[in-house]
Amino acid sequence: MTDRAPSFGLLLFPDVTQLDLTGPYEVLARVPGAQVHLLWKTLDPVRSDTGLTILPTTTLAEAPPFDLILVPGGGGINALLTDDEVLGFLEERASRTRFLAGICTGSLALGAAGLLDGKRAATHWASRNFLAAYGATPVAERVVVDGTLFTGGGVTAGIDVALRIVGNLFGVDSAKLVQLAIEYDPQPPFDAGSPDRAGERLTADLLARMRPMLDARVAAVASGAVALQRRRSQRTG
Amino acid sequence: MTDRAPSFGLLLFPDVTQLDLTGPYEVLARVPGAQVHLLWKTLDPVRSDTGLTILPTTTLAEAPPFDLILVPGGGGINALLTDDEVLGFLEERASRTRFLAGICTGSLALGAAGLLDGKRAATHWASRNFLAAYGATPVAERVVVDGTLFTGGGVTAGIDVALRIVGNLFGVDSAKLVQLAIEYDPQPPFDAGSPDRAGERLTADLLARMRPMLDARVAAVASGAVALQRRRSQRTG
Repeated sequence: MTDRAPSFGLLLFPDVTQLDLTGPYEVLARVPGAQVHLLWKTLDPVRSDTGLTILPTTTLAEAPPFDLILVPGGGGINALLTDDEVLGFLEERASRTRFLAGICTGSLALGAAGLLDGKRAATHWASRNFLAAYGATPVAERVVVDGTLFTGGGVTAGIDVALRIVGNLFGVDSAKLVQLAIEYDPQPPFDAGSPDRAGERLTADLLARMRPMLDARVAAVASGAVALQRRRSQRTG
Repeated sequence: MTDRAPSFGLLLFPDVTQLDLTGPYEVLARVPGAQVHLLWKTLDPVRSDTGLTILPTTTLAEAPPFDLILVPGGGGINALLTDDEVLGFLEERASRTRFLAGICTGSLALGAAGLLDGKRAATHWASRNFLAAYGATPVAERVVVDGTLFTGGGVTAGIDVALRIVGNLFGVDSAKLVQLAIEYDPQPPFDAGSPDRAGERLTADLLARMRPMLDARVAAVASGAVALQRRRSQRTG
C-alpha cells in the first residue's frame, strides 16, 4: 500500500447499472480510512438505468490519484466505448493506478481504452462475446484476476470482486471484517444466477428482452474498436 | 397483484447503509413496469453512512399507494426510532400496503412503528437482541417471512429478501429472470459472512469497532419503545 489513505475512484455515468457500482462501493468504503470517489465529467446528478440518481463527488479533470479505478457497467456503457474524454482518462490513469477493475460490462470500457489487450477478462454473460473485439480472452468466471486487472461477471459479481481487491490490498482479515459487517453470507432463494442454472427457456426469454440493447452494443463495440485502432495508429504513425 | 403497475416505496434517510437500499432497489426495479420510489421527508439529496449521496423521488407526504414499503437500515436508523413523522407514516401505511419489508436494522424502525408485535423477525446479527424491545421474536435467519412481513439479516440480505418478494408477487419465473439478469450466482471469496463463519476473534474485533454505535442504539431502542407505549396508551386511554 501507499503511505496515504487508500483512495478508490469509481466511475459513475448516465444509465449505469447502479448495483454494479453500489455493491463494490459498500465494500470499499468500509476499509478503515478509505476515500471513495464517484467520478464523472461534471458534478451534476447522474441517473442510473433504473432511475436511481446519485451525486458524483469529483470530476474526471480534478480527480486525485487512486489506488484503484473501478468501472461499472450498464446500458450506458455503449456510449462510453467511443467517449474520448472517458477513454482518455482511463488510458492516462492506467499506468499510475495500482489496480484496475471492470464490473459487468464495465470491462468493455476498459477494453475500448486499450487496457485489455492480451488479458483474461470477465463481463456480464450476455456480453461476453464482445471482449474479443478488444483483444481480451473472455473467461466464463465470476472474478478474473490478471496481474493488476480485476474483472467481474454481471452486476452482483462486483461484491465478490471488491472483496478480492480488499483482500489483496489489505489482507484476508480486512476483507473478512467487511464481509462480516455486510453479512455477506448469500442464500439466493432461487437457483438461476447463470444461464446454466436458469435453463434455456428463461435464458432465451431474458435475451429476447435484452435484444435491442445488445444489438446496439454490437455497433457500439465495433465503433469503439475502430476508434481504438485509429488512436493507436496515430500514435505510432 | 393490483391492476395498476407494481409500485414499491423504499425509505431513504440520512446515514442509511446504502447497499441495504440499493440491493433491493436493483431487484425490484427490474420487474417489468415497476415504479420504484425513494421516500424521504424532503427531496434534498440524502447522504448514506459511507458518503454515497442519493436523490429521493417522493416525499412521505406526497407518496402514492404502494404494494410494498421497504425500510433499509444503517447507523441513521437510531434517529428514526423516535421520529414521529417517519413512524406515523409507516404505521398509517401498514394497513393498506400489501407487503412490508425491513432489511438489516431497518426492521427496528418497523418495530418502533408498532409493526413487529408478536412477529418473527430478522435484522443485522449485531442488533438482533434489540428486536425483543418491540415485541418481536428474533430469528437468526437471513430471510424471515411472517405473513405479509419480510425481514432480512444484515445489508446484503436485502438482495435475497427482494428476490423472495418478487417471487411471491409475480411468480418464481419473474424472480429467476431478475436473478439471471443481475447474475446473482454469488461466490464469496472468503467465508466470513456470519459470526459463526468469521470466528470469535474477527467477530470481537468488529463488535469493538461497532461499540459506540451499538451503545447509542441501546438508548435509541429504549426511547423508541417508550414512545411507542405512550402513543398506544394515548390511543386507548
